[in-house]
Amino acid sequence: MVNKKSYVAQLISLKKPAVTSASAFAPANIALCKYWGKKNLELNLPTTPSLSISLGNRGSNVNISIAAQNYLSINNQVVASTSTAFKRTFDFLNLLAPNDIKFAVQSSNNIPTGAGLASSASYFAALTLALNKLYNWQAPLTTLSCLARLGSGSACRSLYHGFVKWLNCDDPLQSYGIPLTTSWEELRIGLLIFDPTQKSISSRQAMLHTQSTSPFYKSWCENSIKDFEILHSAINQKNFQLLGETAEYNTFSLHAVMLSARPAIIYSKPSTLHAIEKVHELRCNGVQVYLTQDAGPNLKLLFLEKDLAYISNFFSELEVVSPFAKVDNWAP
Amino acid sequence: MVNKKSYVAQLISLKKPAVTSASAFAPANIALCKYWGKKNLELNLPTTPSLSISLGNRGSNVNISIAAQNYLSINNQVVASTSTAFKRTFDFLNLLAPNDIKFAVQSSNNIPTGAGLASSASYFAALTLALNKLYNWQAPLTTLSCLARLGSGSACRSLYHGFVKWLNCDDPLQSYGIPLTTSWEELRIGLLIFDPTQKSISSRQAMLHTQSTSPFYKSWCENSIKDFEILHSAINQKNFQLLGETAEYNTFSLHAVMLSARPAIIYSKPSTLHAIEKVHELRCNGVQVYLTQDAGPNLKLLFLEKDLAYISNFFSELEVVSPFAKVDNWAP
Repeated sequence: MVNKKSYVAQLISLKKPAVTSASAFAPANIALCKYWGKKNLELNLPTTPSLSISLGNRGSNVNISIAAQNYLSINNQVVASTSTAFKRTFDFLNLLAPNDIKFAVQSSNNIPTGAGLASSASYFAALTLALNKLYNWQAPLTTLSCLARLGSGSACRSLYHGFVKWLNCDDPLQSYGIPLTTSWEELRIGLLIFDPTQKSISSRQAMLHTQSTSPFYKSWCENSIKDFEILHSAINQKNFQLLGETAEYNTFSLHAVMLSARPAIIYSKPSTLHAIEKVHELRCNGVQVYLTQDAGPNLKLLFLEKDLAYISNFFSELEVVSPFAKVDNWAP
Repeated sequence: MVNKKSYVAQLISLKKPAVTSASAFAPANIALCKYWGKKNLELNLPTTPSLSISLGNRGSNVNISIAAQNYLSINNQVVASTSTAFKRTFDFLNLLAPNDIKFAVQSSNNIPTGAGLASSASYFAALTLALNKLYNWQAPLTTLSCLARLGSGSACRSLYHGFVKWLNCDDPLQSYGIPLTTSWEELRIGLLIFDPTQKSISSRQAMLHTQSTSPFYKSWCENSIKDFEILHSAINQKNFQLLGETAEYNTFSLHAVMLSARPAIIYSKPSTLHAIEKVHELRCNGVQVYLTQDAGPNLKLLFLEKDLAYISNFFSELEVVSPFAKVDNWAP
């Protein structure tokens, strides 16, 4: 904990709140090049570079208020003080706030919670943005990204809209999300949520288990770096086929390295495989649609606006996000 | 072809048939440590050692007769001369027999064909045994195993009952199945055949594709060697838990390396994942049952006789094999 505390002290000065309550929104993000493993457990420094796309107005709205005692609700449900979510929240707040203050935190997510849809990323990013207002830190986004990273690694990418990269540098002060300048209006993300239940093993545990037991983990890291470079240049060139293919390869590599862990981690459900088959069938029919899957059974589809009608017709349950549409930050 | 021809010449002398017709049976085999990749494509020399268990009287019965023209039937269905099975059969016979002779080959399998149940292994092993009778080669089993290997790599393990290993040595004359001496009467193999249809990509193609495109292939090979050693000692010690766990790890590593190929190879179907979940649920309930899966969607379960009733009750479609029961070589 000393390490984390001294790290935080390099980023912000702990002080009294400027106001008694503050709110902020942050988008969820979907990694096209996945983050899976840490070279520094305490500071959440990643073994590999990752690259994501934020989900516009899909994410978390967090309100934080000074309170008589610590309190957390997610989507209007009180969260027990014995739960992991409660512990992670107040461990995080203990780092960033003087210890004698108690908080009531209310989070509303318009994406399913804990189902591999990056709800903890948007939650910790929004919480950090709300703290910035509460304390009037006036911290730059790079600093806030570093702070959010301590709550959940991928939260550092949820401070921004659009494409965001996060490099695997060794300096923790440089380990933040960096937005790319490319805007790609035609890009669509389709959320295929056929299983909104919480996953059986958290990404955090699954990541550590993979890193410590998979015989393929080292190869996975080496390959991830290559995928990252290819994805980066696919975005620069707006080469959709290269983007989609590489994102899908990268996703299957992630699920492969988890399958090779001992014991294996399998997030896919029968319905996941069925949906993968449907995506591949569509591609065989010439439709440019690719998939990505995180630490959960649900899929996210990548396609272009021109194919929206066709693809929506094929997947009746598809929720479509336009990541580069003008964002009205959603408030619950 | 010169290479193969000269290799065969080191093993047997081509001569005239001694009789006009001969039959033989060979068992299918299930690899506990998988064979997946070749260091010599033409001679089917494997990159890694493998270890299998033969399926008793489940396998192929092959009859070969001198005929007016080449003919192949599998399970009483005539096989078209344009098919891969036909081509593989007569390429193999062209190697082992003087070119001016034509054959009628009739094979009957009591396992589904081409569904990842090692039907090509038992087929080429039985065909080789039948040729040994037809030509009266009186060749030792090691020689016949080398010959069968040219038809299908894993066929070299189907010359024997019980546990069989196949080492990844560099000398093609030493590349044959070697039976282990351990007999394990209580061991049961449960075939869970929920999809008897032919696989969409042959093992042969899938193996080459994995080997040439997966970023994890090298790690897979290194790890396979370790799994092989562990399985070998688990058999020596009759340590069932170690055998089952390692076989299951090895299977998931195989499907992981295929999933990481580019594009990915996925043999699992939704029903496969459903069955995997059921096996893991049983294990959570304290039942020692493990799974293995080959180049197809079906599973094979490993368990001991004492759990047979419980497991059969759980999987109504289970076909149980006692690999060390006295074998009446099945004839169709």
